[in-house]
Amino acid sequence: MNNEIKQSAILLIHCNDRPGLVVAITDFIHNNGGNILYLDQHVDRENGVFFMRVEWDLKDFVIQREKIAEYFSTLVGDRYGMNAELHFSDEKPRMALYVSKMAHCFYDLLARYESGELEVDIPLIISNHPDMKTAAERLGIEYHMLAINRENKQQQENKQRILLAEHNIDFIVLARYMQVLSDNFVKDYSQRIINIHHSFLPAFPGGRPYHSAYERGVKIIGATSHYVTAELDAGPIIEQDVVHINHKHSVEDIIRIGRDLEKIVLARAVRHHVHHDLLVYKNRTVVFE
Amino acid sequence: MNNEIKQSAILLIHCNDRPGLVVAITDFIHNNGGNILYLDQHVDRENGVFFMRVEWDLKDFVIQREKIAEYFSTLVGDRYGMNAELHFSDEKPRMALYVSKMAHCFYDLLARYESGELEVDIPLIISNHPDMKTAAERLGIEYHMLAINRENKQQQENKQRILLAEHNIDFIVLARYMQVLSDNFVKDYSQRIINIHHSFLPAFPGGRPYHSAYERGVKIIGATSHYVTAELDAGPIIEQDVVHINHKHSVEDIIRIGRDLEKIVLARAVRHHVHHDLLVYKNRTVVFE
Amino acid sequence: MNNEIKQSAILLIHCNDRPGLVVAITDFIHNNGGNILYLDQHVDRENGVFFMRVEWDLKDFVIQREKIAEYFSTLVGDRYGMNAELHFSDEKPRMALYVSKMAHCFYDLLARYESGELEVDIPLIISNHPDMKTAAERLGIEYHMLAINRENKQQQENKQRILLAEHNIDFIVLARYMQVLSDNFVKDYSQRIINIHHSFLPAFPGGRPYHSAYERGVKIIGATSHYVTAELDAGPIIEQDVVHINHKHSVEDIIRIGRDLEKIVLARAVRHHVHHDLLVYKNRTVVFE
Amino acid sequence: MNNEIKQSAILLIHCNDRPGLVVAITDFIHNNGGNILYLDQHVDRENGVFFMRVEWDLKDFVIQREKIAEYFSTLVGDRYGMNAELHFSDEKPRMALYVSKMAHCFYDLLARYESGELEVDIPLIISNHPDMKTAAERLGIEYHMLAINRENKQQQENKQRILLAEHNIDFIVLARYMQVLSDNFVKDYSQRIINIHHSFLPAFPGGRPYHSAYERGVKIIGATSHYVTAELDAGPIIEQDVVHINHKHSVEDIIRIGRDLEKIVLARAVRHHVHHDLLVYKNRTVVFE
Repeated sequence: MNNEIKQSAILLIHCNDRPGLVVAITDFIHNNGGNILYLDQHVDRENGVFFMRVEWDLKDFVIQREKIAEYFSTLVGDRYGMNAELHFSDEKPRMALYVSKMAHCFYDLLARYESGELEVDIPLIISNHPDMKTAAERLGIEYHMLAINRENKQQQENKQRILLAEHNIDFIVLARYMQVLSDNFVKDYSQRIINIHHSFLPAFPGGRPYHSAYERGVKIIGATSHYVTAELDAGPIIEQDVVHINHKHSVEDIIRIGRDLEKIVLARAVRHHVHHDLLVYKNRTVVFE
Repeated sequence: MNNEIKQSAILLIHCNDRPGLVVAITDFIHNNGGNILYLDQHVDRENGVFFMRVEWDLKDFVIQREKIAEYFSTLVGDRYGMNAELHFSDEKPRMALYVSKMAHCFYDLLARYESGELEVDIPLIISNHPDMKTAAERLGIEYHMLAINRENKQQQENKQRILLAEHNIDFIVLARYMQVLSDNFVKDYSQRIINIHHSFLPAFPGGRPYHSAYERGVKIIGATSHYVTAELDAGPIIEQDVVHINHKHSVEDIIRIGRDLEKIVLARAVRHHVHHDLLVYKNRTVVFE
Repeated sequence: MNNEIKQSAILLIHCNDRPGLVVAITDFIHNNGGNILYLDQHVDRENGVFFMRVEWDLKDFVIQREKIAEYFSTLVGDRYGMNAELHFSDEKPRMALYVSKMAHCFYDLLARYESGELEVDIPLIISNHPDMKTAAERLGIEYHMLAINRENKQQQENKQRILLAEHNIDFIVLARYMQVLSDNFVKDYSQRIINIHHSFLPAFPGGRPYHSAYERGVKIIGATSHYVTAELDAGPIIEQDVVHINHKHSVEDIIRIGRDLEKIVLARAVRHHVHHDLLVYKNRTVVFE
Repeated sequence: MNNEIKQSAILLIHCNDRPGLVVAITDFIHNNGGNILYLDQHVDRENGVFFMRVEWDLKDFVIQREKIAEYFSTLVGDRYGMNAELHFSDEKPRMALYVSKMAHCFYDLLARYESGELEVDIPLIISNHPDMKTAAERLGIEYHMLAINRENKQQQENKQRILLAEHNIDFIVLARYMQVLSDNFVKDYSQRIINIHHSFLPAFPGGRPYHSAYERGVKIIGATSHYVTAELDAGPIIEQDVVHINHKHSVEDIIRIGRDLEKIVLARAVRHHVHHDLLVYKNRTVVFE
């Protein structure tokens, strides 16, 4: 095994499907000295849309890093009407963590961060409660307590925007953050806010899903991580998983069992986002694994 | 292992919880010469309700089979306000199978029936289409084609009632039967009609759940077997299971993958019903396994 | 959705990894008028091996069907030392079904065959018992009962070879066929015999795995479908799945629960084989889904 | 819901099956003023063994706490040859945590401990490495670094025994502790040492199971928590779970995916042990949930 870190470029592309797309993209990479490391492609035949994730080694690539986006767009992307996003494997995304009082997802992400599993920088934690301050400080992460009530919501969001900008935050993870963000905020961070909802959506959206699951007498409970959109719990789903329950489980048991599910499902979603494995199209995700 | 079939009695009980219930029931069995084979008990602490399934060997039991219900009720049940159902392990329930055009659940149940796995008698198959007639006849099961349209629904249900009565049917299994039964019919067969719905309810009730699952971009699909009640797809859930899907799966793939799920989930529910493992309370099931 | 059947070609390729492979293959297809429908690629970095499955529409492809293999080999494959297999989507593989006395996998495959889900021809069933003859005849499939004992094994296998040849059989499915095939037979049908073993291999190879699972007190049981190789239950794994059990389950319960698992896992493996989704390398499978 | 903590007694019983056991036990509780909260019973018909877990409210129980064991034994247990263990719900077990360098299970258990989910006291952490010292100290837990090599193993185990005794440790959890304990040590802590092994045992016992899983090309990986016995990875299994993998996953991916599985499976096993849900008989566990 080779542990040396390769500098590689990642292109995420989607456009209307038509013949010749794969060849156009791979020729661009190959003819300029790039060796393709991963290539994943998908055609949504229902909608006639082409999706690709391609990653190539930059070692012998003749186009300079900062020029790749421009060259690709001029030589390939524009001709085919492609939507393309370019990332580099050696750029660590900067993540802000939002948390309220429930600690399990928060602790789990921090443990992954501390152990190096989560390849991000976390310069900023925002909470509407003071509870997690000590944990944040232990890891040297700035912690801002911004209590929210009906009156100050807009004002506190403005403070958040300033903090996010100051820390060059790329994306936000809501680790059981119990506040609904404003539509404007959500729009400005489109596909950059990941939430964990404690049900298998679209079942049990909104508040107290475990209580509703108990009431309905379901035999499985689930958790869903999704990008936040203006409509509550209706954004593109990134990951879902479930666990079986039975009549012996009280609401408290369900909450406890659900915690393990939530932290795993959220961590998987964050990983996909960080690895640029994700494309969103018409409120559905394409997840290249 | 002992393959000799034991004659045993099964009591399914529920009532308000109070001290002494377990002792009262087990004393009744023990003091009259019954050896307890299985005992499962559950207390719903939220609602203060006690549930029990107890099965005992009849070999040395001093009360005659046909008198057990009366004796239990007089000596125990009435004193504690118990709802009790009595079954005998050597009585095969009589099942009617309803089917439309989709064959997978139907064939799967028939294969289990033919191999002896499903311990029921199936004297009657009812369908709104002629498609499965040959399969029914091969196994010597009466097949009645009763086409349904807006005008004749009531009339055809009346014919069904006659057939169900003639064949002494204990319960009905809807193996992807694509007709909604009338409220009256459902009420008269309360907790005796098992349906399979092709989603993890309460997500995607009603028609075309796989199409809706595709549209919503979920990462898991499910199947739910439940008792039929007047409200569509809202009856007590007996069994649920799910399978992971991804963006590569078209609606057709989802339908195909779902078929395997539906047949397993329906077969498990039928088994629970046949084994008298099931109690219904406030639209939730207690499933003693 | 478009239900018109496309004539497409499928190439399964593996070779040592090196730059330019994707481009060489996709250029061959594109430059000769082929539109790529699916492309899946995988690089095993541990072993430095490149794998690809590519499928393209033949409508405007300028090379004649029967010449494609030769052209590809001459123009691309030989230069890069590729191992390539060519298939066409409109060619139905011919499958022989081997069965003993246990019926569940056998019935399940036949139901899929009858309903059109399984896109194969099944002209031949071979068994060492007479039990499934009626089921075979009902579907008009030739059934040959070739009882096996210590003395006649070689002789009966020779008869099987003649039958397989006469019916132009492409691959064999052992649907709980309880005989070990000879090494020579297995070698001659390398990667063309699919077996279902009733454990999560490599746990519990050989006989009576459910009994061993019970004895060991495992909390999950599994099923494994694999290509048959000379070493018993050690061939390349195609599909595996598991189900949770607990202390309440007797060996009989485990056998019953396992049946549902076996039939699903075997059906999935057969589907992969039939769709040419599978490559074998060093006793491991690459399954492009 | 009632959050007031009930003082309850828990009896774990096993003995040869015979008529009258349930009645004898429940009468003892009921006639002395105990209200049964939970009762779970299982008969292993293969071996003719009876198992029961029964929990009752002590509020109106007329026998003093410290006399219950004696009274039960005299009045019931000895007559039926029962093996009985008595626990009280308000006694927190004292747990020692053993860890090496891998942090995920360790951090996960500590987070559950800190949040109050894990109802134990953890006064002691033992490691053969210094890495986790800071985490231990943060929670005010004593941390002893006892490096192990071929020569000092016996000596270091003796030190461990002293520490375990000093802290009144009830049971030990090996959170990926990478040392094999001596047979004597294991015997003295029989059914009181819980290990997590990173495979679905009995597949891949011993070292490097993820590497072996990769080599064998399995499609699922697993984790198994079990009581430690003299034979490596062969003790009674408490919990197992699995996750699906595919050909794209490298050994590193498998290790990463496995971590999440290990921590969940170990936490579930510790919970069962702490809740006295577990009985061991002939190297198999009965887990009352």
